[in-house]
Amino acid sequence: MAYEEFTIEGRNAVLEAFRSGKTIDRLYVLKGCKDGPVMSIVREAKKAKVVLDFVDKERLDHMSATGKHQGVIAKAAAYDYCEVSDMLEAARAKGEDPFLFLLDNIEDPHNLGAIIRTANLAGAHGVIIPKRHAVGLTATVAKASAGALNYTPVAKVTNLAATIEELKKEGLWFVCADMGGETMYRLNLKGPLGLVIGNEGEGVGRLIREKCDYIASIPMKGDIDSLNASVAAGVLAYEIVRQRMS
Amino acid sequence: MAYEEFTIEGRNAVLEAFRSGKTIDRLYVLKGCKDGPVMSIVREAKKAKVVLDFVDKERLDHMSATGKHQGVIAKAAAYDYCEVSDMLEAARAKGEDPFLFLLDNIEDPHNLGAIIRTANLAGAHGVIIPKRHAVGLTATVAKASAGALNYTPVAKVTNLAATIEELKKEGLWFVCADMGGETMYRLNLKGPLGLVIGNEGEGVGRLIREKCDYIASIPMKGDIDSLNASVAAGVLAYEIVRQRMS
Repeated sequence: MAYEEFTIEGRNAVLEAFRSGKTIDRLYVLKGCKDGPVMSIVREAKKAKVVLDFVDKERLDHMSATGKHQGVIAKAAAYDYCEVSDMLEAARAKGEDPFLFLLDNIEDPHNLGAIIRTANLAGAHGVIIPKRHAVGLTATVAKASAGALNYTPVAKVTNLAATIEELKKEGLWFVCADMGGETMYRLNLKGPLGLVIGNEGEGVGRLIREKCDYIASIPMKGDIDSLNASVAAGVLAYEIVRQRMS
Repeated sequence: MAYEEFTIEGRNAVLEAFRSGKTIDRLYVLKGCKDGPVMSIVREAKKAKVVLDFVDKERLDHMSATGKHQGVIAKAAAYDYCEVSDMLEAARAKGEDPFLFLLDNIEDPHNLGAIIRTANLAGAHGVIIPKRHAVGLTATVAKASAGALNYTPVAKVTNLAATIEELKKEGLWFVCADMGGETMYRLNLKGPLGLVIGNEGEGVGRLIREKCDYIASIPMKGDIDSLNASVAAGVLAYEIVRQRMS
């Protein structure tokens, strides 16, 4: 695990990265390009279920550090991702009820880092983020996590709603932080639990919200609408900690 | 109140800003300069108890947007500061026990903004920050506060320890978040209260810590040392909210 994040450019380098099993967060390919080597890379990306973006030459030129991208640029993760099943296994090994954080499209790397930090200290077994529309494990996230990324595993999933369904079969309950729910102090938040945190601007998406067993509201005594996303995650996580300690 | 922060440059403009009663956060003056007009400005700054920095020409040139600073640059607050006494008055008017946040040198504007946002939603009557070594009400802070700066007053004090002593005479108790204290769930956090949050790296300073009546610890079940400062403020603030609601 390293704090550096990588941009890999050029056909050979990108193909080699895929074949060596490196975790690629995203692949940018020149729109309309049908060259054999580029098509091979696209096949590898699809096999690895990497998010693919077809972009124009200006965008690639702008992203390129070397100016020699040959139509392909890959963004490699600064940290390795983990599998959700490993998190459940870790909880089992410790003899604890699984406690997972699920982030519905957190976009700000400082928030993601602060939430991973909170997950670590609240005793959660892992953090699950979606592949699309969310920030990945960049160097900024690593720094904001204050080292927590070395201890708390992060998994990246294609479909957060499907992951919730699978985890329900494993006995987890799901609670999301949103307005219009029950005050968090009145909910029973013990047992195997997934804590769902919504996007900074939009909150929790409708589909994900419908999958949740509870909607927990943080009491709002002021004039504005909502807490910062990482603060809300911390407040709700520590209500869970309080209930589990009592 | 506006989201813009201002840099005021040049002798006439800076002097005029002081005389019009504008809130100046900090004044930068050319080191060694003894010109009459500059000395007048320094006198005004001292009268207004503004933090003064004597710096070299390179630094002023670098800070200057116009290139015509004439040896003086003032940084004006994006928001007006308020007095601590007004916060106590606001609590009294609402028939509530005073609940204040005191920030012992928060340096990151995103943290300061997020904490002001939390103070608003937790029903606090104001936020107190020290004049030196701390970030002021910049445009970044205003943005991170998500509008809370329009509702939650912020006071800037010369000596946080002295302010704590004065507030104790008004009946306030003080709790700080730090390691090695009593678990927060076991403390009685009702009544007139000041919540002290420490610096991002150093925590609460020794002198301030000694002035506090309670040291509250947030349970740490993980591998790293501490939560993000704004998350810690949120977790402890909401424990106070919970106790006051029950």
